[in-house]
Amino acid sequence: MPEPSPPSPIDRLTDAIDSLGTPACVGLDPSPDRFPADIPTSEPAGAIETFCARVIEGVAGVVPAVKPQSAHFERWGPRGLEALWRTIQRATDAGLFVVLDAKRGDIGSTADHYAAAAINAGADSITANPYLGPSGLEPFLKAPLLTYALVRTSNPDSDAVQAIATDNGESVAERVARLVHETGASHRGTRGLANLGAVVGATKSAADGARLRERMPDTPFLVPGVGAQGGTAEDVRPLVRTNARTPGEAGILVNASRSVLYPETGTVADAAKRFADSLRVLVSAE
Amino acid sequence: MPEPSPPSPIDRLTDAIDSLGTPACVGLDPSPDRFPADIPTSEPAGAIETFCARVIEGVAGVVPAVKPQSAHFERWGPRGLEALWRTIQRATDAGLFVVLDAKRGDIGSTADHYAAAAINAGADSITANPYLGPSGLEPFLKAPLLTYALVRTSNPDSDAVQAIATDNGESVAERVARLVHETGASHRGTRGLANLGAVVGATKSAADGARLRERMPDTPFLVPGVGAQGGTAEDVRPLVRTNARTPGEAGILVNASRSVLYPETGTVADAAKRFADSLRVLVSAE
Repeated sequence: MPEPSPPSPIDRLTDAIDSLGTPACVGLDPSPDRFPADIPTSEPAGAIETFCARVIEGVAGVVPAVKPQSAHFERWGPRGLEALWRTIQRATDAGLFVVLDAKRGDIGSTADHYAAAAINAGADSITANPYLGPSGLEPFLKAPLLTYALVRTSNPDSDAVQAIATDNGESVAERVARLVHETGASHRGTRGLANLGAVVGATKSAADGARLRERMPDTPFLVPGVGAQGGTAEDVRPLVRTNARTPGEAGILVNASRSVLYPETGTVADAAKRFADSLRVLVSAE
Repeated sequence: MPEPSPPSPIDRLTDAIDSLGTPACVGLDPSPDRFPADIPTSEPAGAIETFCARVIEGVAGVVPAVKPQSAHFERWGPRGLEALWRTIQRATDAGLFVVLDAKRGDIGSTADHYAAAAINAGADSITANPYLGPSGLEPFLKAPLLTYALVRTSNPDSDAVQAIATDNGESVAERVARLVHETGASHRGTRGLANLGAVVGATKSAADGARLRERMPDTPFLVPGVGAQGGTAEDVRPLVRTNARTPGEAGILVNASRSVLYPETGTVADAAKRFADSLRVLVSAE
């Protein structure tokens, strides 16, 4: 008899989105200079842990996932990394799916170590850079982690590499999209989506987004750039899978960080609820 | 009066290569399963620190630089990161130039945090991924860190993205090379070399290497893939700058890891010396 497959992280995420009816993800990008006055920041690593603990308490049960951004923790050194690990544990205990936004990328044997680090930290998923080719992605898939490869990022100058036109008329991002689709085809969950996902920014044009979805029909997308970075829920529409039967099968996880962490009015929980609600229309069955 | 420029890491590296007459770099990729029997590995983070301390003692004064590979430390969590920071400090104290091989890449504000992390750790230089565009590289340059952007990596399947043909007949790697050259032009040391470098693997074809050097005439190259990965010193020759007056101005830093860390015969110091000597012919003035 064949070995039973390891549990698939994309299935866990799909179920979590289904159960809350929204594909909202809250980015944990803790910046001590923006913390509320009652969190002392003299010891930054402790402060970011406290801040993240509060955010987790506010968003658990409201959104299915959080995305800790590794650099915001790493900059405080070993104590910062400890804060990251504890934050991941706390989020997991609160029932949240955890995407470690680390954008790692290296050749096979080294990628093995990055994958082990993410698993040891307790993450369900990681962001990764595809520039080194599929062998840099495979170790994350095998870990197993839901692996979101950078395809089209939301920063203003991402065109410098990602929009270079290739010999067949497609952009570099579109060629990378094909690679992600092909590599992911042998790493699927039980509901049709692959364990290899794609980071596709929300602030690029609708046509751009539609071309990427066409090339990656069964790829889960992580969509940053909504909220403070300028994207709106409507910008995400071209990225939604067609014929999805449930919110999770729509194949998107949409991230907001600053607009939820540092809301202009109300609490973090209020901001998370507004964000979560704003996305329901995108994924409700028609 | 204008502010004096910050000290330039590329000048420090160039001087260090000149003073030893060899562009050799020893990669610190500590794998406990390959450690000598007298280093107990029951506590891995402590073991890798001990191992790296020995390597540093063996290679100081023999090679100008070391390249700790971040994943090998990160996989052991906060204690592993502590071992990394102490290793960097120890290497710096021993007079070695430190390239943190972290291959980080993110958008501007997050890259700021990664740059701060590398500076806080004590690194002189970092490897970075260019897929997000120049704004992902600038924060490292400003840190200031000698920043080696991945251009052409030495893993077998790097062609999947890097060798895609673009609309003008150049490969993606060659287009990225142009971008690195242009971005680096405004970040130069006092000896003609830029503070923005390029990772160019030694195992690709000579013609491939020459085309990259042509597009990046003043870019310092970090060249992995020599030794255990199969490249030889002669494979590096097409990457050497022409008209260099000194070994440092040859614009290459050549890395070997496993062949020095785990030598088949003799000590680490012996292996480092053999490696350092094997490269002298490449950079000696004619």
